[in-house]
Amino acid sequence: MITKEQIAADYQQIQDEICLTLEAVDGKAKFEEEKWEREGGGGGRTRVIQNGNIFEKGGVNFSAVHGTLPAVMQKALKVDRDDFFATGVSIVIHPNHPLVPIIHMNIRYFEMPAGSGQEPVRWFGGGIDLTPHYIIDDDARYFHGQLKAVCDKFNDDFYPRFKQWADDYFFIKHRNETRGIGGIFYDKLVATDGITWDNIFDFSKTVGRTFAPAYTELVNRNRDKTFTDEQQQWQYQRRSRYAEFNLVYDAGTKFGLETNGRIESILMSLPPTAKWLYNYQPKAGGEEERTLSLLKKGVDWI
Amino acid sequence: MITKEQIAADYQQIQDEICLTLEAVDGKAKFEEEKWEREGGGGGRTRVIQNGNIFEKGGVNFSAVHGTLPAVMQKALKVDRDDFFATGVSIVIHPNHPLVPIIHMNIRYFEMPAGSGQEPVRWFGGGIDLTPHYIIDDDARYFHGQLKAVCDKFNDDFYPRFKQWADDYFFIKHRNETRGIGGIFYDKLVATDGITWDNIFDFSKTVGRTFAPAYTELVNRNRDKTFTDEQQQWQYQRRSRYAEFNLVYDAGTKFGLETNGRIESILMSLPPTAKWLYNYQPKAGGEEERTLSLLKKGVDWI
Repeated sequence: MITKEQIAADYQQIQDEICLTLEAVDGKAKFEEEKWEREGGGGGRTRVIQNGNIFEKGGVNFSAVHGTLPAVMQKALKVDRDDFFATGVSIVIHPNHPLVPIIHMNIRYFEMPAGSGQEPVRWFGGGIDLTPHYIIDDDARYFHGQLKAVCDKFNDDFYPRFKQWADDYFFIKHRNETRGIGGIFYDKLVATDGITWDNIFDFSKTVGRTFAPAYTELVNRNRDKTFTDEQQQWQYQRRSRYAEFNLVYDAGTKFGLETNGRIESILMSLPPTAKWLYNYQPKAGGEEERTLSLLKKGVDWI
Repeated sequence: MITKEQIAADYQQIQDEICLTLEAVDGKAKFEEEKWEREGGGGGRTRVIQNGNIFEKGGVNFSAVHGTLPAVMQKALKVDRDDFFATGVSIVIHPNHPLVPIIHMNIRYFEMPAGSGQEPVRWFGGGIDLTPHYIIDDDARYFHGQLKAVCDKFNDDFYPRFKQWADDYFFIKHRNETRGIGGIFYDKLVATDGITWDNIFDFSKTVGRTFAPAYTELVNRNRDKTFTDEQQQWQYQRRSRYAEFNLVYDAGTKFGLETNGRIESILMSLPPTAKWLYNYQPKAGGEEERTLSLLKKGVDWI
């Protein structure tokens, strides 16, 4: 049986691997690390990269926290006790180039020990999703193809289920648009789903290790393309939608704000520069209009 | 007895007066108007000014809506029926100058007709609050002095009560800082508070008519000062806090998003350009540090 210490150790190593790869891809900026401790128990390593050749602002965070879960979070997670452990790696990258997409990755594990007459609680969650400022069909196909290949190694069910879950989760209800082209999202994955705990842990790590090569490919495909100031302005507008999603809907952000997490680590996902224009209307027939028309649920990108 | 039609008509006139004054102050930009209708009943006039000499983005919105209040909003407002009418004027102005403050004003009226065996429900709400990017003590004193003078004309109790209410309401909990230097905020003001409905309506209109002269003074005091790029960057950072408050905490924004209001009117309050820097630390002894140190509840600005 895998232990929580083993899971945290492997997640930490995945954080290390990803940071090394991203620094190599960027070629200029280095991650700065902030180690922090949580008052109630545990802590983390926040790593932020800024003002790089290609990465304008990005965070690759590891945390492993434990203690007493507030009543409001017990209710939200539908659990009946308060002694908890949670560990995870969480990433958001905002590139400085409008043709390079924003990306988000998270892998996480949650555990509550057995109480008197109670079974222990444990589950894995996570996913990867992509938010291109401009949707490039080939890139979308490549990205979803990589995720499908990873999922299919573990369970034929995973890609269709987790792809739909991502569509439903990364949805900006008040705009009636998806945050981007989705990807995969899963939560409360447990061994009763037809695979063993070892398999699920292996899946979690494989998702974690899919992030860096997939994003490297997407960065390198687009980083040398020229772009206009108009495209950059559009990028800033798309980033404001990203901020809206994270501040209004994102469960991880809410969890962090409500449990008094480290604010700068939680909100590292917010964009370096964002613009809100009133009543913006894209030019008819332009790439901006095309991207908006594709920000909907249920698109088969492969 | 004043009617809801009378209140809506007077509010509309206040919108007109304010727009004329702000256009004169700006000297370049004009408001663009969008008339909209709400599917469930009523509508509004959204007026937005952009890219002016001094007003980078601002909205002066009037609405008068009616219909059936969703269950979730009945619960939030603690009312027991669904037939409602609401009208109000709502303003947010983002200037392009870091030494000119952001301002917000709102006056509103809510009504539910008598049901079988039920008394009618009606109340007024509103307020004005200021968010300087840099706190200027003289300006803070002037602003709060104006508000106190208006309040004192109606009730000695109003300024201390509504000033504290603003401190508590315009508070960014996860940052442990107030949105700005506050002002006045009141909600569910009814005739049983020791003044008549006519008085309350008069107070509401007086608050509405205090906005333009007070803000004009603050704009004109500061608009010709030179500023550095560093100060402008700081302005963009303060705007990101404004966006955080409005998206995470503001009741009006929540009301709008949950009742499927007109998104562009609701979110006109969001800043034209905002920046999120990771782990920003102000220079010791600088104006930025001083402003941060004053963003707390309970400061006596007068």
